[in-house]
Amino acid sequence: MPQPHRKMSSKAGLAPGSLVHVGRSRTEKAGITWIRFDEDCFEEREIRSLQESLPPGPEGGITWIDFEGVHELETIEEIGKLYGLHPLTLEDIVNSEQRPKMEDYGEYIYIVLKLLSYSRQTGSLNSDQVNLVFKPGMVLSFREAKTDVFEPLKERLRKGKGRLRKQGSDYLAYALMDCIIDRYFILLDELGDKIEAIQEEVVSTPSRGTLQRIYRIKHDMVELRRFIWPLRDFINLMLRGEIPLIEEHTRLYLRDLYDHTMQVIETIDTFRDTLSGLIDIYLSSISNKMNEIMKVLTIIATIFIPLTFIAGVYGMNFENMPELKWRWGYPVTWGLMTAVAVVMLIYFRKKKWL
Amino acid sequence: MPQPHRKMSSKAGLAPGSLVHVGRSRTEKAGITWIRFDEDCFEEREIRSLQESLPPGPEGGITWIDFEGVHELETIEEIGKLYGLHPLTLEDIVNSEQRPKMEDYGEYIYIVLKLLSYSRQTGSLNSDQVNLVFKPGMVLSFREAKTDVFEPLKERLRKGKGRLRKQGSDYLAYALMDCIIDRYFILLDELGDKIEAIQEEVVSTPSRGTLQRIYRIKHDMVELRRFIWPLRDFINLMLRGEIPLIEEHTRLYLRDLYDHTMQVIETIDTFRDTLSGLIDIYLSSISNKMNEIMKVLTIIATIFIPLTFIAGVYGMNFENMPELKWRWGYPVTWGLMTAVAVVMLIYFRKKKWL
Amino acid sequence: MPQPHRKMSSKAGLAPGSLVHVGRSRTEKAGITWIRFDEDCFEEREIRSLQESLPPGPEGGITWIDFEGVHELETIEEIGKLYGLHPLTLEDIVNSEQRPKMEDYGEYIYIVLKLLSYSRQTGSLNSDQVNLVFKPGMVLSFREAKTDVFEPLKERLRKGKGRLRKQGSDYLAYALMDCIIDRYFILLDELGDKIEAIQEEVVSTPSRGTLQRIYRIKHDMVELRRFIWPLRDFINLMLRGEIPLIEEHTRLYLRDLYDHTMQVIETIDTFRDTLSGLIDIYLSSISNKMNEIMKVLTIIATIFIPLTFIAGVYGMNFENMPELKWRWGYPVTWGLMTAVAVVMLIYFRKKKWL
Amino acid sequence: MPQPHRKMSSKAGLAPGSLVHVGRSRTEKAGITWIRFDEDCFEEREIRSLQESLPPGPEGGITWIDFEGVHELETIEEIGKLYGLHPLTLEDIVNSEQRPKMEDYGEYIYIVLKLLSYSRQTGSLNSDQVNLVFKPGMVLSFREAKTDVFEPLKERLRKGKGRLRKQGSDYLAYALMDCIIDRYFILLDELGDKIEAIQEEVVSTPSRGTLQRIYRIKHDMVELRRFIWPLRDFINLMLRGEIPLIEEHTRLYLRDLYDHTMQVIETIDTFRDTLSGLIDIYLSSISNKMNEIMKVLTIIATIFIPLTFIAGVYGMNFENMPELKWRWGYPVTWGLMTAVAVVMLIYFRKKKWL
Amino acid sequence: MPQPHRKMSSKAGLAPGSLVHVGRSRTEKAGITWIRFDEDCFEEREIRSLQESLPPGPEGGITWIDFEGVHELETIEEIGKLYGLHPLTLEDIVNSEQRPKMEDYGEYIYIVLKLLSYSRQTGSLNSDQVNLVFKPGMVLSFREAKTDVFEPLKERLRKGKGRLRKQGSDYLAYALMDCIIDRYFILLDELGDKIEAIQEEVVSTPSRGTLQRIYRIKHDMVELRRFIWPLRDFINLMLRGEIPLIEEHTRLYLRDLYDHTMQVIETIDTFRDTLSGLIDIYLSSISNKMNEIMKVLTIIATIFIPLTFIAGVYGMNFENMPELKWRWGYPVTWGLMTAVAVVMLIYFRKKKWL
Repeated sequence: MPQPHRKMSSKAGLAPGSLVHVGRSRTEKAGITWIRFDEDCFEEREIRSLQESLPPGPEGGITWIDFEGVHELETIEEIGKLYGLHPLTLEDIVNSEQRPKMEDYGEYIYIVLKLLSYSRQTGSLNSDQVNLVFKPGMVLSFREAKTDVFEPLKERLRKGKGRLRKQGSDYLAYALMDCIIDRYFILLDELGDKIEAIQEEVVSTPSRGTLQRIYRIKHDMVELRRFIWPLRDFINLMLRGEIPLIEEHTRLYLRDLYDHTMQVIETIDTFRDTLSGLIDIYLSSISNKMNEIMKVLTIIATIFIPLTFIAGVYGMNFENMPELKWRWGYPVTWGLMTAVAVVMLIYFRKKKWL
Repeated sequence: MPQPHRKMSSKAGLAPGSLVHVGRSRTEKAGITWIRFDEDCFEEREIRSLQESLPPGPEGGITWIDFEGVHELETIEEIGKLYGLHPLTLEDIVNSEQRPKMEDYGEYIYIVLKLLSYSRQTGSLNSDQVNLVFKPGMVLSFREAKTDVFEPLKERLRKGKGRLRKQGSDYLAYALMDCIIDRYFILLDELGDKIEAIQEEVVSTPSRGTLQRIYRIKHDMVELRRFIWPLRDFINLMLRGEIPLIEEHTRLYLRDLYDHTMQVIETIDTFRDTLSGLIDIYLSSISNKMNEIMKVLTIIATIFIPLTFIAGVYGMNFENMPELKWRWGYPVTWGLMTAVAVVMLIYFRKKKWL
Repeated sequence: MPQPHRKMSSKAGLAPGSLVHVGRSRTEKAGITWIRFDEDCFEEREIRSLQESLPPGPEGGITWIDFEGVHELETIEEIGKLYGLHPLTLEDIVNSEQRPKMEDYGEYIYIVLKLLSYSRQTGSLNSDQVNLVFKPGMVLSFREAKTDVFEPLKERLRKGKGRLRKQGSDYLAYALMDCIIDRYFILLDELGDKIEAIQEEVVSTPSRGTLQRIYRIKHDMVELRRFIWPLRDFINLMLRGEIPLIEEHTRLYLRDLYDHTMQVIETIDTFRDTLSGLIDIYLSSISNKMNEIMKVLTIIATIFIPLTFIAGVYGMNFENMPELKWRWGYPVTWGLMTAVAVVMLIYFRKKKWL
Repeated sequence: MPQPHRKMSSKAGLAPGSLVHVGRSRTEKAGITWIRFDEDCFEEREIRSLQESLPPGPEGGITWIDFEGVHELETIEEIGKLYGLHPLTLEDIVNSEQRPKMEDYGEYIYIVLKLLSYSRQTGSLNSDQVNLVFKPGMVLSFREAKTDVFEPLKERLRKGKGRLRKQGSDYLAYALMDCIIDRYFILLDELGDKIEAIQEEVVSTPSRGTLQRIYRIKHDMVELRRFIWPLRDFINLMLRGEIPLIEEHTRLYLRDLYDHTMQVIETIDTFRDTLSGLIDIYLSSISNKMNEIMKVLTIIATIFIPLTFIAGVYGMNFENMPELKWRWGYPVTWGLMTAVAVVMLIYFRKKKWL
Repeated sequence: MPQPHRKMSSKAGLAPGSLVHVGRSRTEKAGITWIRFDEDCFEEREIRSLQESLPPGPEGGITWIDFEGVHELETIEEIGKLYGLHPLTLEDIVNSEQRPKMEDYGEYIYIVLKLLSYSRQTGSLNSDQVNLVFKPGMVLSFREAKTDVFEPLKERLRKGKGRLRKQGSDYLAYALMDCIIDRYFILLDELGDKIEAIQEEVVSTPSRGTLQRIYRIKHDMVELRRFIWPLRDFINLMLRGEIPLIEEHTRLYLRDLYDHTMQVIETIDTFRDTLSGLIDIYLSSISNKMNEIMKVLTIIATIFIPLTFIAGVYGMNFENMPELKWRWGYPVTWGLMTAVAVVMLIYFRKKKWL
């Protein structure tokens, strides 16, 4: 069973807005990718320090800066000053235990999402926080860990295919969100395969570990739901047109995103339902097995106990036991014992216990 | 147990609006039926390519184009251009894993429904997606699979009976939805029959498979509910008059449709309730059976164990056992054993265990 | 267990507004009672055909036509034309599988209610649909079956007692609804008696049938709730003053009706709660009984098994068993066996198993 | 288990507004207390008939008439006429099966509350209905039974302490409600004591009656919740300022009342949660006990069955059994038997069954 | 199991606004800390009586008076008069059984929070009430018990770090709330550790106490949720801008607080889910253990019962038993018995019972 608690308490007592990195400790240098594009041109650079990130460029177009690693607090602080981010935004970016949320700071929109995957090594659910900030002409993305989740998007930008290059920063933010939600479907597929394997196991070879495995997946599902449920609310808010930074025409695409989110939630609910059913079937399987064993005991014991009694009777040493001296005493006793056994078997069969 | 996951993940990483067919792979040619009618005349043609589908006709009247098969992506793309459908609409049409929904694109309304049936071969729930698009004077319907669900409607159109020929495209769209929801009642009847059969089974011959069968139906019910629940919301939205493309007078009929949807949902809920009860009765049945077996063991063992002990005592080989030499020793022992057995039987009967 | 499904599917594929009688098939002639009254005069006639139903009368006053039997489709159709009822209203009147509902058709209000009773013969819940239509000066009531539910009301009208004769058609409609909801209290009393009887049974003589009886009542309760829950919503709507056909002053009475409905719902919920408790007590009762039996087996077996072993030892035929030849061998053995039994009994008593 | 149904059905078929006393039948004379006070003076009289109740007094001030007993229908009817109460109000006052509610009749506010207590004799929950009617300058209270619930309030009025004498009739009505809700805390204390006693019982001496006692309290809790839940809604309505008869400044006090109601509800919910936990612990306790017994059986039987078999073998009467004639046959057999027993005991201990 | 009831009933019958101390009785003197600061200067004094607390100071700046101990009713009453607090506010401050709430009294805001911790001695959940009152330029905090919860905040004020010294009293009130909510994370960590320990125990050495320990934590969780849930509502209210005393710019920080509250609630829900799973695993663990024991009994009994029967047969004393005289009778019997045992073992292995 995965550990259910997180070390949020390390921040207790600090002033709000204090930058404290909460998350897996990392040492490698954070990677920064700077991208500027408009309908006609596209420029991409791997940069080391933030000063580099501001090449003079033509007016218009969209700048996207993609940060990998949020553990370098000075870099984050510098970014905050450079782009006018609120201290609370910065605090949330470096704290990887945020709930998914969208916050409208007036000048910019701040979005927290979770990138979920199954870790190959531990087999447990892995969540990496992705932070998005966008304002007109500018998108910032902060990722807790190195992943290739935005690769297909960058590829599409480079090739200039699709709507991406012609739209505003709100559409780019949508596209980034879409990349992350697409990953949930891959995760659901993996979960589905796991559940199918457990279904097999429950019916054929239920063991003590089966139950624990079911509960572990159930627990993952609860986690998953917890990370996806808030999406539903804030995407709905965004598509209803109450956020001025989001253009009318991007909203149609957000509706599509909303649909995907609902699909993920519904699939999770179906999975949970299936798992609940599996627990019941498992328990009934186990008790069925036990019952079968008990039945065999009952039948063998019930048949032999009276027979043993009969044998016991004629093992008594009374001097005056006429049966012992009868010529047919022994075979008659055998006959009696056989008769008792047969009657019992017939009774059991009539009762459908055999 | 049916497989709980779907291969939505195949689309991960693609640009939104990319046309990818998600669903059972099919090879046969898609069928296109072109219908134009007004109050006075009616015309119907099976066409092969879309160019054919635009015979010059008199002004007014309603055109309904009914597509069977959504796997031919070029055809779908062509339709999209011809009738001004948004790329997201097209993407949803060819993706058979959509949730039921209604989307107002301003110029047209896009509706996704599920046609549900039990497959004869596998005995599992089968869902075919039906997509409806309507705008003034025009209805497009896209069906994933070949079914006769719209046959009665076409027949009514041909005969010119009823309101159908006199109303607008919103009424035709309503009529198409009505055809699909009517099918749910047939499905509920089949489910009802299945549940009744299981009720019989639970009470008379509960076996290990019974529980699995109950859970399979329960799972189908969850699926069913998932496909019907969104209907409730969007039909309610349509009848509240917030969609300008739907005329005042069609709304009365949508209210009727809403009622049917509620009836389906309530019946599903009653079924689920019945199934939950059946699970409890099944479990209690099984444990009752076990208890009966245990009772027999207990009673036989409890009676014979003391008797066997008595026989054992007089089977001992002590030289100095006066009872063995008594004349009436043997019969008295028999009497003693009978007495013990009778006392026990009386005790059991008093305790109502017999 | 009652059959959970209904044959709604017989209407699949028909045009909306098609008149198809859904319900128990009946052959007797429908009965029509025509009543006209105002504050001063009262007239009542049993009529055979609808033409009769229109005697020229003085201006003002209220006409109430009460139809018993909705299976004569021509009569219903004729009524529809005569009083300007919408085809959907007519379709619903002849379809006895409607959910309770209120529909505002502008000119008139259409209300569907369920008259519920326990059938004496089958002991199962019986639901008869009652349809009410009212507009200024006119109330139509359609009852699926012959019942005396409106008798007290007619009596009050005849005697001219109370407010009834002075009020409008909305008050008469209210009074009709009140008659039906009053019946629910009688039904609840019957259910309460049944539950009390089962309570007795669960505690004193729980048998296998008890559980099935509990589930049958629970199922009836679900049905009941399903029929009454919609009342709550639409009566609330009516009393909030959003239906113009209902006068200010009738609303106070509707509030009373609402209260009654809430009382019925709360009583049902209390009953359901009690039934859930009964199931738990039943299961615990059954397992208690089993445990008692097992305890007796355990104690008897546990005491006699060691004793039988001792007897077995001295039943061995070794030539060299000194104990067998001791003078006090036999009595000492008896003493040993008694001691073992006593020690065990003391142990059991200390453990509180006796 | 308390009887779950009420005889509401006795009113079925009567006209709305008919005065029928529903509740415990009573014969004693109803008591009427007439109180008039303002900031400066206070007057209190026990009166017999209503004519007495109207002594001419100075203008201003508040009149509170407190009725004990609602079974004298003529008195109630007279009051109704005198103070202009609606027939539905009168009907509800004499019907003790009302749900708690507040009704705004425009000229006056009508409030129904339940005074709850545990009956000393039967140990079951007792509910007495209290009806309040207030309008500017006048408060009427109708109590089903004689209680001292308003005594502290009257005492405070007599002594002229606190705000009471300076405020309007809405504040007096609030104070009356406060008296009743204060009683709920006393009831909760009694319930808490009962639950604590059962907790003891479940852990130390769980018996068959324990479960029934738990369910009885759980049932009381459901009743309690049913009586208190509506309070929450209508007090909230009153404090939101939508009832014109309630002054701005009384609302602060109603907010306090609301808080108390929430506290009662939360305590009930905590109690219910505790009771659910107790049921689980009880069931697990019972099955633990059974398991312990079974374990003893198993261990004793498992050890002695093989030993008895060995003894049985050497009790056989074959002529040719060389072991029987060996010199050390008997002691070796004992050794063998001891060895078997010891091995088994070690095995059991290793398995942690001992 | 913790006692579930509280002695709220001690106040029944008193006038609203009466000051009665409800909570742990205390005797030590209440401590009062007086702090005045603005952006430039900071002054802090421990004072004994309230008269001291009003040193003449420069205009502007914020005064924070922090009271430790609410059992000195005269002091509280004096404060009330001095700062114009409503009697209901005072009543709530001295009553430690309040629910968390925020009340807008127009001139000031009154907030009740709970400081939660695990008591080292009893291991049970401890709740101390903290009352906050703030109006422009003034914050009052009343704490039931001596804790160091506000120490870090005071330290930050003294050092003049951060926003605190530059903001209004609403920000200070926010900062105080933040201190308390930060403590919840520490509590959650402790709870998480406890749950992890129980997970270990359930899987490795489940005992009877395990279940009770699980339920105790579950109960704490219910308490916790009850104390935190209202926070969610009133913080949401505060950040939505409906409370005029809270400035626009403090709301961003309240949004952060809201987020923390949601995180606490979600963690509690995850914990509860985990605990429910643990109960199931515990129960299944216990029954698995029992089943294993039963299986051993069954197998040993089932094998030896037939063997003992065979031995019993040849222990009979019939004169005419030819087998007894056969030369190979004895070894053949052994062979027979071995064969029976082997066949049984093979059968069991085939059935996978071994």
